[in-house]
Amino acid sequence: MAVNEIFQYSIISALMDGVASTGLPVSQLIAHGDHGLGTFRHMVGEMIILDGELYQMKSDNTVRPVDTSPASDAVTPFAMVTRLRPTATVRAAFADKKQLFGHLSREFPDSKNFFLAIRIEGVFKGITVRTAGGQSRPGEGLVEVGRNQASHTFEEPVRGTVIGFRSPEYTMGISVAGDHLHFITEDRTQGGHILSFGTDGEVDIGAAQISKWHLELPTNDPEFSRAPLEGDKEGIAAVEG
Amino acid sequence: MAVNEIFQYSIISALMDGVASTGLPVSQLIAHGDHGLGTFRHMVGEMIILDGELYQMKSDNTVRPVDTSPASDAVTPFAMVTRLRPTATVRAAFADKKQLFGHLSREFPDSKNFFLAIRIEGVFKGITVRTAGGQSRPGEGLVEVGRNQASHTFEEPVRGTVIGFRSPEYTMGISVAGDHLHFITEDRTQGGHILSFGTDGEVDIGAAQISKWHLELPTNDPEFSRAPLEGDKEGIAAVEG
Repeated sequence: MAVNEIFQYSIISALMDGVASTGLPVSQLIAHGDHGLGTFRHMVGEMIILDGELYQMKSDNTVRPVDTSPASDAVTPFAMVTRLRPTATVRAAFADKKQLFGHLSREFPDSKNFFLAIRIEGVFKGITVRTAGGQSRPGEGLVEVGRNQASHTFEEPVRGTVIGFRSPEYTMGISVAGDHLHFITEDRTQGGHILSFGTDGEVDIGAAQISKWHLELPTNDPEFSRAPLEGDKEGIAAVEG
Repeated sequence: MAVNEIFQYSIISALMDGVASTGLPVSQLIAHGDHGLGTFRHMVGEMIILDGELYQMKSDNTVRPVDTSPASDAVTPFAMVTRLRPTATVRAAFADKKQLFGHLSREFPDSKNFFLAIRIEGVFKGITVRTAGGQSRPGEGLVEVGRNQASHTFEEPVRGTVIGFRSPEYTMGISVAGDHLHFITEDRTQGGHILSFGTDGEVDIGAAQISKWHLELPTNDPEFSRAPLEGDKEGIAAVEG
């Protein structure tokens, strides 16, 4: 896949419906991109990919690098990746997600109907992340899984990297409309799905507007084939936004 | 693009919002597939592609082959194409779309969450097609354009080819959820978007289930960038279903 295109495996409504017993081998995922996010079998933890390294961030507050060789048995039931080459970079501070997206809207003024891929490097403060604990039974949906998540607020400013996507409104149910950001600390020991954050001074924001989106649906997966996939938009916004 | 994947240019909500002043050159479209459908600049007529030949079927009841060489100035503001290699073929008769999709559901029993690409060859009867007359002003939406369409019912059985797609419910607003079928006569002189049809005896139905969908959004098109793209599902079903 060329740079600044998105490869997405499965659709977010499938996670809402609890489709997470199997998925795409991470060795195949990584062939499509070196930056991204997603989840793992049974929604155990949060996935972040940066510079081609893939990490699993778990609700027991551990982070482990995941083997992405063909020998790996790790799979993802949902992920989005890109080969990110930022077309705009800006050094800026922000107090919350809204201010971050103000910066991005200035850099990409006509981007509301496109995807943005985003990478932010620097020191963050007031950052709260959640990590899904995983399904308590096969087929449990994302809203239920979300009730059993761990959330962690960093008390001190912390250096790290944010990777994520902004997806246009009309993709809701397939992708997560709006922003979807994951975080990992510089020492790769903590992180998760960002619920809220700001910066401690200026950080480096790099982003690219994306107009090519490659979607692969799960085959040979009865859970996916039979899922209602009716797209609970409010539910997705509540649990992934 | 490999066989039995779908390439789609733009989204159907953009046509609903009247985004049709420019588009993808047909020479680029044809590079992605040899079977498909779509429309043309200002929604003038209906596009059908079969065996790599691309036709424009107009509301004045004419059909013309369209030059797909790089020298062509034809563009499409919305199209879906594939390299169709049917994985199931069946000879069957049907009285209406519902019966056709009964046949397809038997051949592809777990396909509701996937795309189907479809080609049907044979003699049809009671076939009614519509051909959009085009925008009366730039930016006019598909519902308005639809009020100015020509519809034609073939009084006699007619031999020809149907090309189309069935798209899953969750793609509504991006694709046309449900079936979207275009028809052209064997002598390539008449055709359009199918409103209703049946067969005169058995026809040859070939189809493939598709799990890879490549979407390209219009860049450098202010109409697209600024369109609301709010996805009027009932409107799309009324005008494209």
